Amino acid sequence: MSLLPPQITKAIEEFSKLPGIGSKSAERLTFHLLRSSKASPETLGKALTDLKVELKYCRHCQMVTLQDECSICADTSRDHAMILIVENPLDVIAFERSGYKGVYHVLHGVLSPIDGMGPEQLRLKELVDRCADGKVEEAIVATNPDVEGEATASFIRERLKDKVEKITRLAHGLPMGADIEFADQVTLKEAVDGRRKL
Amino acid sequence: MSLLPPQITKAIEEFSKLPGIGSKSAERLTFHLLRSSKASPETLGKALTDLKVELKYCRHCQMVTLQDECSICADTSRDHAMILIVENPLDVIAFERSGYKGVYHVLHGVLSPIDGMGPEQLRLKELVDRCADGKVEEAIVATNPDVEGEATASFIRERLKDKVEKITRLAHGLPMGADIEFADQVTLKEAVDGRRKL
Repeated sequence: MSLLPPQITKAIEEFSKLPGIGSKSAERLTFHLLRSSKASPETLGKALTDLKVELKYCRHCQMVTLQDECSICADTSRDHAMILIVENPLDVIAFERSGYKGVYHVLHGVLSPIDGMGPEQLRLKELVDRCADGKVEEAIVATNPDVEGEATASFIRERLKDKVEKITRLAHGLPMGADIEFADQVTLKEAVDGRRKL
Repeated sequence: MSLLPPQITKAIEEFSKLPGIGSKSAERLTFHLLRSSKASPETLGKALTDLKVELKYCRHCQMVTLQDECSICADTSRDHAMILIVENPLDVIAFERSGYKGVYHVLHGVLSPIDGMGPEQLRLKELVDRCADGKVEEAIVATNPDVEGEATASFIRERLKDKVEKITRLAHGLPMGADIEFADQVTLKEAVDGRRKL
């Protein structure tokens, strides 16, 4: 690769560090930026350099925000005794669309020792602190239903069990529009176990 | 998405402009950069901002370089009467590995009206100028064997036919290690048509 100027190999190298982008994709992206009329390396470069500038995390829920407090936590009409614990900021947006009326807590990750994500890398201390005064009545753990998400959920339950009366987990079952024929066995078992009166 | 700070939506938007990156991938990349320990938005941002700084194109072959002339064109031991015409700089690196000893010409794209790539967007004028003095004996058109690559090859042949005596195209056929059983019909036809004496 010594035929390529160093700034090109550097850009390729940095792109390769991103998840799902191998060295071939990184090369393609770099050369695309060099000749594209729509995307430009300067614009993307500036957007990324600016990414963390002035970016704050809400002092209550750790959501990304521009103020000290996010608009959700500042909203007094919401139920502040109910905290929905999510992995990342995009989950908050998804739950907002669903009409949820409590508040949130963003962990910014899940426990995943392979990726170097331990309890200290998550915003867990902030969560425990928020629940310390006993005013939180329910904590809904909404991590993803996968290995890391389940492990994180158990970990959170242990940390909060003396502080929050009701700790719940999102319901598992068939998603809307699913086809039972193609559903996996664990989902079907959960759907039967969690059956509700019609 | 109004819940997200503008610099985050901006980064997502810029990532989405890249080929093969949809809005979901763009979100994932942006939030990955925010919390990753390995990749950082500042480093990638700086690499991209610097990408075009001091970047030059060789005045002969249009290869990306740091000088006015690339190391290949400056090498007098190479055959300057043979020009291999490629789509992009990475192709040069691939051919260098194969032991090719002539020089190159990088088009920086192929004809593709849908993507707004016409003859003016390619480094075609530079190619025609290079061949104008009649010193180039052979032009090997090495665009990819796909629709755009074939169209570009025909276009180049028309432009060069009065200037270069021998205009050739890379051989089509079975790649090394291929399995005839799984080869497509066009490749097999080309392999038979282009058969060589053993």
